[in-house]
Amino acid sequence: MEGRKIMAKYESKVYQHGTLGMLVPGLFEGTMTVADLLKHGNWGIGTASGLDGEMILLDHVPYLAQSNGEIRILKPEEKVPFATVHFEEIKDSFKVENLTQKELEDKILADYPYKNVFFAVKIVGNFSTVKTRVVEKQTRPYKTLLQVADEQAVFESTDVSGTVIGYFAPKMFQGMAAAGYHLHFLADNKSIGGHLLDFKIKEATVYLQPFATIEQHLPMDNQEFLNKDLDIADMHDQIQKAEG
Amino acid sequence: MEGRKIMAKYESKVYQHGTLGMLVPGLFEGTMTVADLLKHGNWGIGTASGLDGEMILLDHVPYLAQSNGEIRILKPEEKVPFATVHFEEIKDSFKVENLTQKELEDKILADYPYKNVFFAVKIVGNFSTVKTRVVEKQTRPYKTLLQVADEQAVFESTDVSGTVIGYFAPKMFQGMAAAGYHLHFLADNKSIGGHLLDFKIKEATVYLQPFATIEQHLPMDNQEFLNKDLDIADMHDQIQKAEG
Repeated sequence: MEGRKIMAKYESKVYQHGTLGMLVPGLFEGTMTVADLLKHGNWGIGTASGLDGEMILLDHVPYLAQSNGEIRILKPEEKVPFATVHFEEIKDSFKVENLTQKELEDKILADYPYKNVFFAVKIVGNFSTVKTRVVEKQTRPYKTLLQVADEQAVFESTDVSGTVIGYFAPKMFQGMAAAGYHLHFLADNKSIGGHLLDFKIKEATVYLQPFATIEQHLPMDNQEFLNKDLDIADMHDQIQKAEG
Repeated sequence: MEGRKIMAKYESKVYQHGTLGMLVPGLFEGTMTVADLLKHGNWGIGTASGLDGEMILLDHVPYLAQSNGEIRILKPEEKVPFATVHFEEIKDSFKVENLTQKELEDKILADYPYKNVFFAVKIVGNFSTVKTRVVEKQTRPYKTLLQVADEQAVFESTDVSGTVIGYFAPKMFQGMAAAGYHLHFLADNKSIGGHLLDFKIKEATVYLQPFATIEQHLPMDNQEFLNKDLDIADMHDQIQKAEG
């Protein structure tokens, strides 16, 4: 009974290493190993060192969708500049059919009591259409995030089963993250993955998990980060243009 | 020896309950007890329920400067809507003489290697002049933060010894906090306290503590917070006008 009591008081937490704001001026080098990152969550999203693709962390497995269309698993010693992860503890789930991405996102915000906190979104099922983008690996000297936004591979698929994983960030967290939804996708057969640009659900289950706590970690031992000029007047505009 | 190893790897953390963004539309009611807050830090700043003054947490003692000029100690069961606290673990300190607030703030940013992370500022010494403001207690229906910004008591003092405590937040954390410095003051003799508008140091010691981790906690059980419309287009402008 004591155990039940503790469970009832447990408040779910999301962990983030790096920020979206740090990517804006080109801090693309990995600063935390995947092994360390996975101590803080078994589901999540991120990118690899040099922005070499889109990370999709599904039940402890850190997949990386790369711009050549290949999907590989990140090694524990590889480093990430920016990633958001959590331990799964689903609070709500519901089934949906025949919904576009916009319809689903609006439906969640209309009904959901936790739109003012950071929350995780997982969608498992069949998709009539899926459109993803994958950033191209960058080499030094790094460009800005806005310049890189044009250098992306776009992938499309129809009638594909797979998993969407990602987060919704309230506006007050723009800078740390991009305000709004940030969702990645991986097909069950690994034929397509990446940052979601658009999708249509045929039939799927949606899982939501709100977080009382955001643990934001910064690479305080990385000299390039410490030296970078992050006092960028139009940081929010640049985030919206690059991620919107 | 094992103990020393763990100490060497310890990365300092700052804890925040609520956000500045939540105050913008008037979420002024306390949502965490002072007793619970003090589990997360023994130094820091904040405000009381209804914006009833400026909290100055000095070495476990949660002082509250009120708009009538009185300084009292918050009771453990009183609640705060917004507070930032940390356990002290000073990394740098230096002595200064005859510096204005602006000169000191610029000096720190010019020299300090941790201007891209959230860091704590403590200043202990003698001040030639101190000017503070203290917000007036609000009653329901609550106004917006910008409307309240005009309803403040201003206090001035000369030749006073005391302690400055507060934080610097990099721009990417505006929304959670106000970007830049946010400093509170309490005189040793409790004759003056509040949110610092201006000061001149006669001679003092400055202590700085950078944080690798920000733990941001939200009152997920507070229905008023969950229901509030926080999708405020000009949230950043309102924060800058109210806190700038």
